[in-house]
Amino acid sequence: MIILIQCKDQVGLVAAISGVLAAEGINIISMREHVDTMENRFFMRLETMHDANAVLLEQKLQLVLPADAMVQVNPSPEKKIIVLVTKEYHCLADILTRNFFKTLGATVQCVIGNHPTLENICERFGVPFYLVSHEQKGKDAFEEELKIIIKKFQFDYLILAKFMRILSPAFISNYDLRIINIHHSFLPAFVGANPYRKAFERGVKLIGATAHFVTNDLDEGPIIAQQIIPVDHSFTAGSMMHAGKEIETAVLAKALQLVFSDRVFVYKNKTIVFE
Amino acid sequence: MIILIQCKDQVGLVAAISGVLAAEGINIISMREHVDTMENRFFMRLETMHDANAVLLEQKLQLVLPADAMVQVNPSPEKKIIVLVTKEYHCLADILTRNFFKTLGATVQCVIGNHPTLENICERFGVPFYLVSHEQKGKDAFEEELKIIIKKFQFDYLILAKFMRILSPAFISNYDLRIINIHHSFLPAFVGANPYRKAFERGVKLIGATAHFVTNDLDEGPIIAQQIIPVDHSFTAGSMMHAGKEIETAVLAKALQLVFSDRVFVYKNKTIVFE
Amino acid sequence: MIILIQCKDQVGLVAAISGVLAAEGINIISMREHVDTMENRFFMRLETMHDANAVLLEQKLQLVLPADAMVQVNPSPEKKIIVLVTKEYHCLADILTRNFFKTLGATVQCVIGNHPTLENICERFGVPFYLVSHEQKGKDAFEEELKIIIKKFQFDYLILAKFMRILSPAFISNYDLRIINIHHSFLPAFVGANPYRKAFERGVKLIGATAHFVTNDLDEGPIIAQQIIPVDHSFTAGSMMHAGKEIETAVLAKALQLVFSDRVFVYKNKTIVFE
Amino acid sequence: MIILIQCKDQVGLVAAISGVLAAEGINIISMREHVDTMENRFFMRLETMHDANAVLLEQKLQLVLPADAMVQVNPSPEKKIIVLVTKEYHCLADILTRNFFKTLGATVQCVIGNHPTLENICERFGVPFYLVSHEQKGKDAFEEELKIIIKKFQFDYLILAKFMRILSPAFISNYDLRIINIHHSFLPAFVGANPYRKAFERGVKLIGATAHFVTNDLDEGPIIAQQIIPVDHSFTAGSMMHAGKEIETAVLAKALQLVFSDRVFVYKNKTIVFE
Repeated sequence: MIILIQCKDQVGLVAAISGVLAAEGINIISMREHVDTMENRFFMRLETMHDANAVLLEQKLQLVLPADAMVQVNPSPEKKIIVLVTKEYHCLADILTRNFFKTLGATVQCVIGNHPTLENICERFGVPFYLVSHEQKGKDAFEEELKIIIKKFQFDYLILAKFMRILSPAFISNYDLRIINIHHSFLPAFVGANPYRKAFERGVKLIGATAHFVTNDLDEGPIIAQQIIPVDHSFTAGSMMHAGKEIETAVLAKALQLVFSDRVFVYKNKTIVFE
Repeated sequence: MIILIQCKDQVGLVAAISGVLAAEGINIISMREHVDTMENRFFMRLETMHDANAVLLEQKLQLVLPADAMVQVNPSPEKKIIVLVTKEYHCLADILTRNFFKTLGATVQCVIGNHPTLENICERFGVPFYLVSHEQKGKDAFEEELKIIIKKFQFDYLILAKFMRILSPAFISNYDLRIINIHHSFLPAFVGANPYRKAFERGVKLIGATAHFVTNDLDEGPIIAQQIIPVDHSFTAGSMMHAGKEIETAVLAKALQLVFSDRVFVYKNKTIVFE
Repeated sequence: MIILIQCKDQVGLVAAISGVLAAEGINIISMREHVDTMENRFFMRLETMHDANAVLLEQKLQLVLPADAMVQVNPSPEKKIIVLVTKEYHCLADILTRNFFKTLGATVQCVIGNHPTLENICERFGVPFYLVSHEQKGKDAFEEELKIIIKKFQFDYLILAKFMRILSPAFISNYDLRIINIHHSFLPAFVGANPYRKAFERGVKLIGATAHFVTNDLDEGPIIAQQIIPVDHSFTAGSMMHAGKEIETAVLAKALQLVFSDRVFVYKNKTIVFE
Repeated sequence: MIILIQCKDQVGLVAAISGVLAAEGINIISMREHVDTMENRFFMRLETMHDANAVLLEQKLQLVLPADAMVQVNPSPEKKIIVLVTKEYHCLADILTRNFFKTLGATVQCVIGNHPTLENICERFGVPFYLVSHEQKGKDAFEEELKIIIKKFQFDYLILAKFMRILSPAFISNYDLRIINIHHSFLPAFVGANPYRKAFERGVKLIGATAHFVTNDLDEGPIIAQQIIPVDHSFTAGSMMHAGKEIETAVLAKALQLVFSDRVFVYKNKTIVFE
């Protein structure tokens, strides 16, 4: 059983929480805790050996915690996701493969693409694919079509798996901290379009990728995971992009694994990640 | 204030420990905990915001813990070390530099070398150097001379910073889990002498270094830290050794930083490292 | 156009080779060269801007090179492979995905499994799957069945993508330096079975994977690529295996990309890899 | 013997160069070559087994190369450097240590500090230290004082080893592509002051350091080497800075080793690094 707690910090929180668990005879297998002393904020993730009544335990924990406490006992154990894509296959194929073999930690409800390129791979894995072209319509109309499909499904997260359209703040605000993007650069370097071109022109010796929650500011949401690979003078902008795809796949997979196993807290513009 | 606790696992340990701290009004800044479920063993490291009476707090914690519990409140805050060397300078120079600028997290009491090569650098940093040659005497006599010098000083750890003599089990048993070695390979690959020669002959694509506590079995003690660097066909055994020195320096520095900040527990032949 | 040359070393080889190319008006885009001075052996990989008549160019190069020279001009530009698997999907799914999207640098002719587990994924990608059970028959009979299927196809390499049967030297000798294996450890550590169990018991802080050509000695062939990931005390043998699969997939993909783009020479028990 | 060649690209360059060497009976041990096809620029680094008359060989090579060719045969085999520092010791101590043990690949002629903090360590290593305070004077006067000291010494490179003053374009133009800086961030992220503060506020999961040649644009010169280390939510801006010092030391050491062994070409705002 997993328990997540977030509240303002005060003396005795750990004693109060672990006291409730001990009184219930619940054995703690793993306890990770972080206090952000600048923000006076307390974060805790617990894994227990056995399950208990989630609703009752949540109530008992709320009783001993500050009024602002957010407590989740076994938060949605079966995550559901919707994946948005354009033409590039690498992140989607990795997600579909893990989904197919039940190792994703979530179920892919459907895939929405603004190009038909990736319909074939979805069909092969038996996952519904919806084509929503962005062409010959305004952004509002495009996003309205997206929302109509999204509403058909239950989901915990929208995954932007190389979805190359910029979503409006209005759209994003519907899914607060539930949208995860893979950005093809080591943020905050090379924000925006064509990061590999910019990296090539700058002559960097490392390129990277960043998985982050999407907020209103482009490429500015809380970072979940980042990784890099070395490059050298022999790389063109094209071969950097090619190499970058490997790291994009890996870092999005890592971020999803962390989020789906309830290891990621978000507070203001940062994440707390209990790996 | 740092608190280290190790004991057999049972339900309610975290509640008991944090209850004592809360009753004393002590605020926990950082809590790291690990339960080895196979060994039924509990490990905890706490950092608190303020200091308290260490002796009293230790007694109060012992009262609520299993009889076998090992509790340390602010374990030797000022670590002292003795460094053993042969001819290679890289690890020693790094230790002496940090010692000189007070960033080592420990004080170097003296350096013992079985060659005079590194006397000069010790003198420049004002650290006593003792020459104990291993030549023209048996291992027993050599180790007896080492022990005579070691006895002159208070110390927490003996650091083998590229000390190229194999110490006897009898010698090691005097300093149980207080000897730290840097081994010039990615253990358990290439145990023993000439690891870079063996790595070259095997044609590996990565070489590494391992910092570990020394036990009676050669190169078999609990591992504290390991790192690697890539190599390729253009490396000779010599240039592997050259490159390896950089990683040896880095991994020993990392291991010492972890040990000196009380982040390393040892149980049986493994370490628990709360980074 | 790619040109590979291997021969004994002597003064003037580069002049002779580049002289032939210059006389033909062929512009060199990339030239990588290695001299193994201990073995007195010369290796070169060239990329040229434009194509030329491969047969004629090979003849002209042979004329200026030592008698033992091996010269390949545009070696099999369209690689073909056969993949052998057991039950684990991660390496196979990665290969099938890249094959499907034409980014593998090779074509998968068929997959042979000694369990039916992975038949479904092969069918979804339209790749022939052959079940050859190892049960209720001797190793000779099992390998004979494998060979019958293998003979049906043209291929450049056999890829052991988590194929968990040990092949006999007799079988291997049929496909000299054409079998590539992914080994679930950072060789030469933890040779043989259950490497993650052994890594767990040793308490290592890094685990790795090794892609190598298969020779008669188990896990002892020339290494193509190796990678590692950090682990700590919180990993069980099981979670090490889980984490290891990610690195196995990555390192096999890397090795195949290197081999399929003709960047890997083998000499005795080592590789020369021109990345 | 090392030979460096840079010129516009054309067919037959390798043949011409290697032809000259073969005619002289010079055996090539290592040849690294790069053609920047966008810039139509050719770069080559050669290592030969034996020495030859450098002046004569340079003339013979110039005869077969384009008029713009820059040829260096055994470029300043004994590099000399001047190191500029402020208060932080880590990069300087590493350079002084390697200098003392003759493994730097260069000789430290003197150290100039704008604070007296690091005078003591220089004295211990017998390296002249000059204090040039920036206080109570304009930038022009400060830089004039620096230049007076610099002029006393022969040197190949000025190393800014955590020198915390911004140098004027006028000053820099005196030492074109001869100034190497270690920047405490993974450029181009967090250009300018307080990068660790900015990295902390952005919540990045990796921090880095960049060694680069200094040109007129702040933090914008050709990058020689970059490295990163992972960080997480438990890091403060202070502990990021602390961890960053380790990577700064490592990446500057790496860059200096590359530059001092003549492995780095600069063209426009990029480097070609033949590792």
